[in-house]
Amino acid sequence: TEPTPITIARGDGIGPEIMDATLEVLQASGANLAFEEIQIGESVYKRGIMNGMEPSAWDSLRRTKVFLKAPITTPQGGGYKSLNVTIRGALGLYANIRPCVSYHPYVSTKHPTMDVVIVRENEEDLYAGIEYRQTQEVTQAVKLITRPGSEKIIRYAFEYARANHRRKVTAFVKDNIMKISDGLFHRVFDEIAAEYPDIEHESMIVDIGAARLADTPEQFDVIVTLNLYGDIISDIAAQITGSVGLAGSSNIGDQCAMFEAIHGSAPTIAGKNIANPSGLILASVMMLVHIGQAEAAEKIHNAWLRMIEDGIHTVDIFKRGVSKARVGTRDFAQN
Amino acid sequence: TEPTPITIARGDGIGPEIMDATLEVLQASGANLAFEEIQIGESVYKRGIMNGMEPSAWDSLRRTKVFLKAPITTPQGGGYKSLNVTIRGALGLYANIRPCVSYHPYVSTKHPTMDVVIVRENEEDLYAGIEYRQTQEVTQAVKLITRPGSEKIIRYAFEYARANHRRKVTAFVKDNIMKISDGLFHRVFDEIAAEYPDIEHESMIVDIGAARLADTPEQFDVIVTLNLYGDIISDIAAQITGSVGLAGSSNIGDQCAMFEAIHGSAPTIAGKNIANPSGLILASVMMLVHIGQAEAAEKIHNAWLRMIEDGIHTVDIFKRGVSKARVGTRDFAQN
Ligand SMILES: CC(C)[C@H](C(=O)O)[C@@H](O)C(=O)O
Ligand SMILES: CC(C)[C@H](C(=O)O)[C@@H](O)C(=O)O
Repeated sequence: TEPTPITIARGDGIGPEIMDATLEVLQASGANLAFEEIQIGESVYKRGIMNGMEPSAWDSLRRTKVFLKAPITTPQGGGYKSLNVTIRGALGLYANIRPCVSYHPYVSTKHPTMDVVIVRENEEDLYAGIEYRQTQEVTQAVKLITRPGSEKIIRYAFEYARANHRRKVTAFVKDNIMKISDGLFHRVFDEIAAEYPDIEHESMIVDIGAARLADTPEQFDVIVTLNLYGDIISDIAAQITGSVGLAGSSNIGDQCAMFEAIHGSAPTIAGKNIANPSGLILASVMMLVHIGQAEAAEKIHNAWLRMIEDGIHTVDIFKRGVSKARVGTRDFAQN
Repeated sequence: TEPTPITIARGDGIGPEIMDATLEVLQASGANLAFEEIQIGESVYKRGIMNGMEPSAWDSLRRTKVFLKAPITTPQGGGYKSLNVTIRGALGLYANIRPCVSYHPYVSTKHPTMDVVIVRENEEDLYAGIEYRQTQEVTQAVKLITRPGSEKIIRYAFEYARANHRRKVTAFVKDNIMKISDGLFHRVFDEIAAEYPDIEHESMIVDIGAARLADTPEQFDVIVTLNLYGDIISDIAAQITGSVGLAGSSNIGDQCAMFEAIHGSAPTIAGKNIANPSGLILASVMMLVHIGQAEAAEKIHNAWLRMIEDGIHTVDIFKRGVSKARVGTRDFAQN
């Protein structure tokens, strides 16, 4: 059969090395893929393209509809637009899925039994980018919450829970304060939950939910929430598994999908062959499942788990007494 | 000397019992206070006063300018306004101070050395309450960030740090997305930080900051942030000290101040004599410092610490091997 075309981008900082490691792993898995590489990030911004992506790169994305993306660095200062947000909007990637699992006892964590999937709305909220300075002293930003947007992401969460044999979906909202906007999300959540009697549901005020997540994450299963809360709580959840470097994520739309690590481009450790490629490797596993190559996905996931369990660790999760060998980015991939 | 007049409210749920415990402690400390009690919360909402406070109660607050408040329950459903937000706005309580300290080994926690103070902006942001439904399907909420509001809270944080011999102030913002609004807060932070060369400063993107706070809170000292981020991260910080029941907070304005526990009214355990009164007791310690009765404050704080260290614990923090006696709300106060 024909290989599935995939658009890839190496990104900035540790991006190129973790992408190389991931491509090596994909190759070894027997996945049937044809890569198209595009340029994104710093080098593109520096040529004055304010959203960080070559106009021609969109053609590749529209053709392949699947994007495996390494982290990029957005330059400091005014005028630059977040490429992540641009891509999510342009390709209609409304669902951001972030599984956060701990690998106790192989990876040191204070939360040995956590296994949470965060389903984050990915287009609306304060990310719509509507902001203005009314006077020199007064600024406003507009938070947008719509019924279609809320329905889509909440339905996605329940379908995801059902397909992945998950027991419960929890919504995080702040509708004691935002009665109209978060209130709408909450109402839609209750409506859609009623269509899935096989799955438990509950909702929590986001501050209380976030506190419980940080303290006893094992009480959660699937969490569905607004864009900005999802941004904050998914970083928390990923971090407390033991390393933010272990989490992959998918951004799903009706037509297209993008797969990436949760962590950033970590410029300070770039080029040192010490970065943990796990986030991008696990993102590529999610990608293989998405395009129907479940066998290769399972092969990579199992091999990766075996490495972690064998204690072959990159330096970020290396721990005396648990880890057995400390390896670089390259060796990790080769194992 | 004349006793200092203080307005108190017993609130709902566990409110009355923890207030009684706190008043007993205040009495025993020799603090020189004269209490005026007002009615707030459920019973007032039920009489159709939509913000939960008797109009006449404002007179007491305007007179005493100091408010010791137990938690209340806001009824579910449309039309009700959060009393907390109303009071903060009406009295101009722009700074919400939440010290989150762990009491290892006396109180079980995964974060034995944390000692973080969160200074939360308390009037602006999405709490301004500007929300509208544009169509049946589209809602918006407006986030307001101003220069005067940002200056006030940031200066408060640095002054607090200096007065309390704290080393560092960290700002949490999301100005990679909200470049105008959070960008303004960040810029003001850098400006004011420059006036305090004796205090370190740094800023973090809120998702990364929250993740670090949940994982390694000992890296933080004073954190200053916008209202909604502050709401979320202060609940996280309080919870991971071991119990959200231990944290008191103050809401400070130019004229008035309000002191309260961080936790809510916990209706399910109300009236059982098991609630932990520590949050409100520590809030009353902050109150005594505020009105210049530092001696009584220290006395209560030391007695409270001794109880915790002696293992005389309410059930929420009771733990075999650490705690020695499990006591009720009333006995805790009497000790
Ligand atoms: C880089 C940034 C724009 C992005 C976000 O806020 O969504 C990141 O934090 C993420 O979570 O993917
Ligand atoms: C009860 C609620 C309105 C309040 C808030 O959101 O500020 C509470 O969570 C708090 O932190 O004091």
